[in-house]
Amino acid sequence: MDEDAKKTALRMIPYGIYVLTAEKGDAVGAATVNWVTQTAFTPPLVAVGVKTDSATYATIKDAGHFALNMLGKGQQGIAFGFFKPAEKDGETIGGESYRSGTTGAPILENAPASVECKVLEIVEQGDHQVVVGELVEAHAATAPEGRPDQAILTKWELGDNVFYGG
Amino acid sequence: MDEDAKKTALRMIPYGIYVLTAEKGDAVGAATVNWVTQTAFTPPLVAVGVKTDSATYATIKDAGHFALNMLGKGQQGIAFGFFKPAEKDGETIGGESYRSGTTGAPILENAPASVECKVLEIVEQGDHQVVVGELVEAHAATAPEGRPDQAILTKWELGDNVFYGG
Repeated sequence: MDEDAKKTALRMIPYGIYVLTAEKGDAVGAATVNWVTQTAFTPPLVAVGVKTDSATYATIKDAGHFALNMLGKGQQGIAFGFFKPAEKDGETIGGESYRSGTTGAPILENAPASVECKVLEIVEQGDHQVVVGELVEAHAATAPEGRPDQAILTKWELGDNVFYGG
Repeated sequence: MDEDAKKTALRMIPYGIYVLTAEKGDAVGAATVNWVTQTAFTPPLVAVGVKTDSATYATIKDAGHFALNMLGKGQQGIAFGFFKPAEKDGETIGGESYRSGTTGAPILENAPASVECKVLEIVEQGDHQVVVGELVEAHAATAPEGRPDQAILTKWELGDNVFYGG
C-alpha cells in the first residue's frame, strides 16, 4: 500500500470534535474523540471509533450506553481538557459541569448538543473499536445559527498540525 | 426523544462526500455517500453507512470489497451523478472514467484520492448497514494544497438544504 496516498486519502475525511462520555457506578469515562458518523436513520444509529485501551471504552462496554457531546466553535479548551484521562469531582468531570442523562451517561452542560445512545454492537478489530449505538435521547441547548454542520468545532480548528484521530 | 434536539445534534456532524464503488462479475455498484469515518489506525479501518436496499450494498456484500473515492472541491456534478443508480458503459460508470483497483473495486479517475478496502464486518441493524472495511490499497493523484480535510467536497457545498445522509 502506498503510505503517502493512504495518509492523504484518510486525512481528507473531515471531522467534528466530541466529548464521549459514559458512567457506571464509580467508573466514569470521558474523552475527546473525532471518529464519528451517523450510520442509519431508522433506527437512528451512530458509529464511533473508541480507543481500545481507554477507560472510556471500558466504561462504555460495561455501562452499555454512552453520550456524544458535540463541541461548538471556540470550545477548543474543552477538547484539549479531555485529551487526558478525566476525573470526576463532585458535579464535574475534567473540570466541566455535567448532569446525568436518561441513560446515566454524563451530559456536559457547556455542550451545545448531545445524544445519548445504547450500545447495539461493538466491532472489535483494531487499536480502536467500532461502537455502534442507537440514539435514545437528544439534547440541544440552542439551535445554532446557520447550518449545524458548520457550528461544530472541527479538527482543523485544534491546530494546523493536529490530525490525531480516535 | 426530543425530535428537534435529535435533528440539531445529528446535523452537527460534518461530512465529506464520497463515491462508494464495488464490482463483481457483471454487477457494479456506485453511489454517493457521506456517512464515513475512520475507526482505527492499526489495522487502518473505516466504517461506512450503506443503504440496505441499494445495488451498491448488494455488490459490496457479494464482492467482499469496496472503494471509497473522495471527491474534491467543485466536483458537485460527480456527487449528484451518483445519487441515482449507476450504469456501467465500457470504461465508464455513471459517465465517469474508472479503472479497476487491486481489489477489483472501481477507482474513479477524477477522484483526487481513493482507498480500497476488504470488508471485515457488517453490522446489519437499520435502513443503512455499517460496513467496516480494512484498507488494503490507497490512491492519491496529487496531494492537495493545505489540509486534506479542507480539500474534500462537503455536504454543505451540495446545497443549503441538503442534509441527506447515507
